[in-house]
Amino acid sequence: MIHVRTSVDRPDPVLVKELGRFSAATIHEAQGRIGALDSRLKPVDPDMEFCGPAYTVVCAPRDNIMLQVAIAYAAAGDVVVASAGEYTEAGSFGDVLANACLAKGLGGLLTDSGVRDTRELKALGFPVFSRSICIKGTVKETVGPMNVPVIVGGAEIRPGDVVRGDADGVVVVRRESLADVVQAAKEREDAEARYIAEYHAGRTVLEVSRLREVLAAKGLVIGP
Amino acid sequence: MIHVRTSVDRPDPVLVKELGRFSAATIHEAQGRIGALDSRLKPVDPDMEFCGPAYTVVCAPRDNIMLQVAIAYAAAGDVVVASAGEYTEAGSFGDVLANACLAKGLGGLLTDSGVRDTRELKALGFPVFSRSICIKGTVKETVGPMNVPVIVGGAEIRPGDVVRGDADGVVVVRRESLADVVQAAKEREDAEARYIAEYHAGRTVLEVSRLREVLAAKGLVIGP
Amino acid sequence: MIHVRTSVDRPDPVLVKELGRFSAATIHEAQGRIGALDSRLKPVDPDMEFCGPAYTVVCAPRDNIMLQVAIAYAAAGDVVVASAGEYTEAGSFGDVLANACLAKGLGGLLTDSGVRDTRELKALGFPVFSRSICIKGTVKETVGPMNVPVIVGGAEIRPGDVVRGDADGVVVVRRESLADVVQAAKEREDAEARYIAEYHAGRTVLEVSRLREVLAAKGLVIGP
Amino acid sequence: MIHVRTSVDRPDPVLVKELGRFSAATIHEAQGRIGALDSRLKPVDPDMEFCGPAYTVVCAPRDNIMLQVAIAYAAAGDVVVASAGEYTEAGSFGDVLANACLAKGLGGLLTDSGVRDTRELKALGFPVFSRSICIKGTVKETVGPMNVPVIVGGAEIRPGDVVRGDADGVVVVRRESLADVVQAAKEREDAEARYIAEYHAGRTVLEVSRLREVLAAKGLVIGP
Amino acid sequence: MIHVRTSVDRPDPVLVKELGRFSAATIHEAQGRIGALDSRLKPVDPDMEFCGPAYTVVCAPRDNIMLQVAIAYAAAGDVVVASAGEYTEAGSFGDVLANACLAKGLGGLLTDSGVRDTRELKALGFPVFSRSICIKGTVKETVGPMNVPVIVGGAEIRPGDVVRGDADGVVVVRRESLADVVQAAKEREDAEARYIAEYHAGRTVLEVSRLREVLAAKGLVIGP
Amino acid sequence: MIHVRTSVDRPDPVLVKELGRFSAATIHEAQGRIGALDSRLKPVDPDMEFCGPAYTVVCAPRDNIMLQVAIAYAAAGDVVVASAGEYTEAGSFGDVLANACLAKGLGGLLTDSGVRDTRELKALGFPVFSRSICIKGTVKETVGPMNVPVIVGGAEIRPGDVVRGDADGVVVVRRESLADVVQAAKEREDAEARYIAEYHAGRTVLEVSRLREVLAAKGLVIGP
Repeated sequence: MIHVRTSVDRPDPVLVKELGRFSAATIHEAQGRIGALDSRLKPVDPDMEFCGPAYTVVCAPRDNIMLQVAIAYAAAGDVVVASAGEYTEAGSFGDVLANACLAKGLGGLLTDSGVRDTRELKALGFPVFSRSICIKGTVKETVGPMNVPVIVGGAEIRPGDVVRGDADGVVVVRRESLADVVQAAKEREDAEARYIAEYHAGRTVLEVSRLREVLAAKGLVIGP
Repeated sequence: MIHVRTSVDRPDPVLVKELGRFSAATIHEAQGRIGALDSRLKPVDPDMEFCGPAYTVVCAPRDNIMLQVAIAYAAAGDVVVASAGEYTEAGSFGDVLANACLAKGLGGLLTDSGVRDTRELKALGFPVFSRSICIKGTVKETVGPMNVPVIVGGAEIRPGDVVRGDADGVVVVRRESLADVVQAAKEREDAEARYIAEYHAGRTVLEVSRLREVLAAKGLVIGP
Repeated sequence: MIHVRTSVDRPDPVLVKELGRFSAATIHEAQGRIGALDSRLKPVDPDMEFCGPAYTVVCAPRDNIMLQVAIAYAAAGDVVVASAGEYTEAGSFGDVLANACLAKGLGGLLTDSGVRDTRELKALGFPVFSRSICIKGTVKETVGPMNVPVIVGGAEIRPGDVVRGDADGVVVVRRESLADVVQAAKEREDAEARYIAEYHAGRTVLEVSRLREVLAAKGLVIGP
Repeated sequence: MIHVRTSVDRPDPVLVKELGRFSAATIHEAQGRIGALDSRLKPVDPDMEFCGPAYTVVCAPRDNIMLQVAIAYAAAGDVVVASAGEYTEAGSFGDVLANACLAKGLGGLLTDSGVRDTRELKALGFPVFSRSICIKGTVKETVGPMNVPVIVGGAEIRPGDVVRGDADGVVVVRRESLADVVQAAKEREDAEARYIAEYHAGRTVLEVSRLREVLAAKGLVIGP
Repeated sequence: MIHVRTSVDRPDPVLVKELGRFSAATIHEAQGRIGALDSRLKPVDPDMEFCGPAYTVVCAPRDNIMLQVAIAYAAAGDVVVASAGEYTEAGSFGDVLANACLAKGLGGLLTDSGVRDTRELKALGFPVFSRSICIKGTVKETVGPMNVPVIVGGAEIRPGDVVRGDADGVVVVRRESLADVVQAAKEREDAEARYIAEYHAGRTVLEVSRLREVLAAKGLVIGP
Repeated sequence: MIHVRTSVDRPDPVLVKELGRFSAATIHEAQGRIGALDSRLKPVDPDMEFCGPAYTVVCAPRDNIMLQVAIAYAAAGDVVVASAGEYTEAGSFGDVLANACLAKGLGGLLTDSGVRDTRELKALGFPVFSRSICIKGTVKETVGPMNVPVIVGGAEIRPGDVVRGDADGVVVVRRESLADVVQAAKEREDAEARYIAEYHAGRTVLEVSRLREVLAAKGLVIGP
């Protein structure tokens, strides 16, 4: 017998919503350049984005039985995160399951395998991030764990961590760090706005980034 | 001397048209999860799609002389299918040849090499599927067979088989199976519509997919 | 001490502008099928394009300190070309630096590493070409040369050469060949327009390309 | 119910043995440059080689239940050929099953997935060709066809075709062409021996290959 | 200021030594098919192997300053495990540092980047596992953490976990599970020996693996 | 008409021989970390090595006609360097041509495409470096330039430059820098010998590399 866990300690939804105001890149920087997933994990369409608690599941390659279990038990707002062996030649999720997700109000899907029915997914407006787009169907044979820590795209994702994805990729924020990261992201965004204002006021990148002294200390002589 | 064949036994155009109503993924499932090509073969633009009899040709890598022969002899509605050594660093087809195809009413082009002039191809509305987009030009040196069975994207395509491509990828249907596959695709689409209706009526994926008993038989205990 | 060069012998801006009327593929063909970069270098968005003198810089992988130096010293219209070790898991350029580039009127950015903030880059309208899109941040540690010949995407780019990029990829034109290539591109485009007209007048590709005799000389017999 | 076929029409064993005297490269050339598999399929050790009738089986990725069925029913001398979804992150065969193969006198194993226990395989002397070497274990869940035509490494292999593998890779010879290919391989090997003798007698490659006229016809002028 | 940790809770050396009697594949199976690293991480020579406590370090791509810190503080028997951004175009370790490791009695090196001086490494007999072999030198610029959990080859490795590598790849065993895994590996090896004996006694793989009933339950009919 | 050049300005053979005493990695470091080729270019066998003047040629992918011209005109000691489009699915060189090279006393072959007959190449003792090993034959159709600068493995190689390859990879040294690089390589090798002696005398890598102050300046605190 294999027991799988359905309950997840979720983060404060107010903080999740606040985090979702920032891009994945900003969040990655704000928390000290950690938590970024492999750049090959991308949305099916650049306009898709998600931000929600991770509901994790381990699937066999080319098998979506556990993905269906996860969808059945995930709660509204959750992002289902499937570790599926990084197998690109399978389409483990499509418009039929996307309707199931939408009916439940799920927040998105992230898999390190492939998905299909991408035009329908865009039309439905359900955010799906994957390693590939592939029409090949899956079997329903192999059971596996749910809501355990998984490694997806080279980053560890624990149940209840927050995953944030946009056109540029995906970042994970530990549940216990969420408030700090939201605060740091705000500060970073403010700093970036100041940098941009300084550029348009005519200052150079070296001045704005205070790099002149750094470069001199490294022995760089910028000549004609 | 090398003889190449120009004639192809084509399928019933009414059935081809009916098949074109279904997505590549649906057709792949409907015929028993066979016939899908490698997921790296994709349209130049996600809105492109084709469905037509395959007019097959074997090209040398970075050489499009035989592709031109195929275009010259293919008939209206045909999809030219080029096996070109899976070489990604060549653009063997562009807007000039696309005009030739449009002037003849061809149905599309599929190559396991690269193509170019993608913005023009989109504007022209001629569906082109390839392994890469590359500006590098081709030579016109090496002759090869035409209308023989070819392997493209890991699937065998015979002259007169029907190839169906959309945003998700490409599937091939044997000419002799066409009527059966059209029927099976209709049934699958009806079943999917029922599934979707059930999800929105509040039933879970496990109920809709009748997976509860399957999971129990596999020893899965779904707990808190 | 490491001296880096800031001055570049730039080509005639009138010729640069004329070159920009032609696609990267046309230019590659017009100059004798040379100068094309690896097809994995692509714009962040298919509508982006650039044409300008190359301002070259060598960066360490996952380090953008020298990229900032290059942006600081490049002139309006220049395309900053960064050789950064073909490392895909880094986002070395984003919307903040894009604002710096826009404030100076730079012509574009090309890197063989990754970039981020792609939706903002599209909104800003600054053309960015890269090997990947990645959220992972960079350090500012390692200095390196500027305005030396670099190899990016398998092609040598010298400071002041013209780089032209569009949806299909990137080509480099030697500064000293610019006038000749512009002329050859015009001639090629005229020839292509004639070909297209002939196709629509009902002539076959073999007639238009004068391939019948070539094929016969190679022993090809085109039969039923 | 799924019926799988255990009987295979095997070729003349005398011809199979004769074919095994030639390298995979020589056979590929002798039969007109066809039948070569993707170059990523390689022996676990460069000293391994096989030549025998193909006993084909289709496996799910990371699942070796059907591979075990194939090993159980294959006959002495057969090479088990497994199409397993080109999944590199699985080790579907190791020293335990190799002992089973040796006990039955099988001729070898070819899979487009991974294998493990490579040092033991070398010590046992059982020839194993694969896409990868990977320690990750497999499940035993999904049944599939046996002794149907399969596509492995981009080439179609039918049950009873002869597969020949050595350090350079693998080639398939149709059962019905075996006698002709053996004869052509002999002739090619004789011709190659003459070429080599001519080189060592001081003749240049252009003379030996009779390329001077070919090059002149192509307009090549070889100057200082 | 950045503090890095030099102390590690190491496992019982007697258990580490016992674990080293088993292959990486056997250990992976024995602990329930977990802990295997990506199959692209391989020894520089198939005869190399290691088994020891992980001494982890995070390096910038193409930068080995922290690798040198780790070598300086690791203890005899430790395997230095470097997470270096999966950058293949750098050789971050060679014969000079291998001499430093040998002088200290270290147990091995594992990096997800590249190494060089492979013939010298073989001659020295120091086990080195990497993603690539590359001559390109590294810089010494960027500091980072040491003895924190790292993800290498898609698996989490914590300081003091045991890493075991051989010709087939690498597996990690949690420090706290070591005794159980050693016991399970012994049992698995005994079971495998029995299987092999049964094969040579003439029993088929289906009998030995007790698969006949499993296959029948799945509806497989094995016919002629 | 296409003229190809057969004459090359070769470097001093005494210096070439001296350079050959150093490894590719040492030479790369000695000349300031430049000139290394892509790490995917490797010898067919780790015991192979070459050091000689480059005799460059440009081949079409899967076409070896120009490779044969180069072999015909190269001089004893030369290393034939073929830029062939980085196409891995072709075997453009094998034992027959290796005999031609040996009969002339050539120094080696380097191609960015594939080769075959690897066991015979090892037995013959002719050093061959390539991107892949592949049995697929080539055509003899497309002529191209000879003894022009080529880019192979991302590095520019000019006729008469010295290419040095060993188990770790390949490096190119400009003809005009040869004497300086030989001298620098000697100094580096002496320094490395001193480092190794210091390690075995019990000094740590940080002491030997004088890294303690560097690390402190970067703010690194190495604690328990």
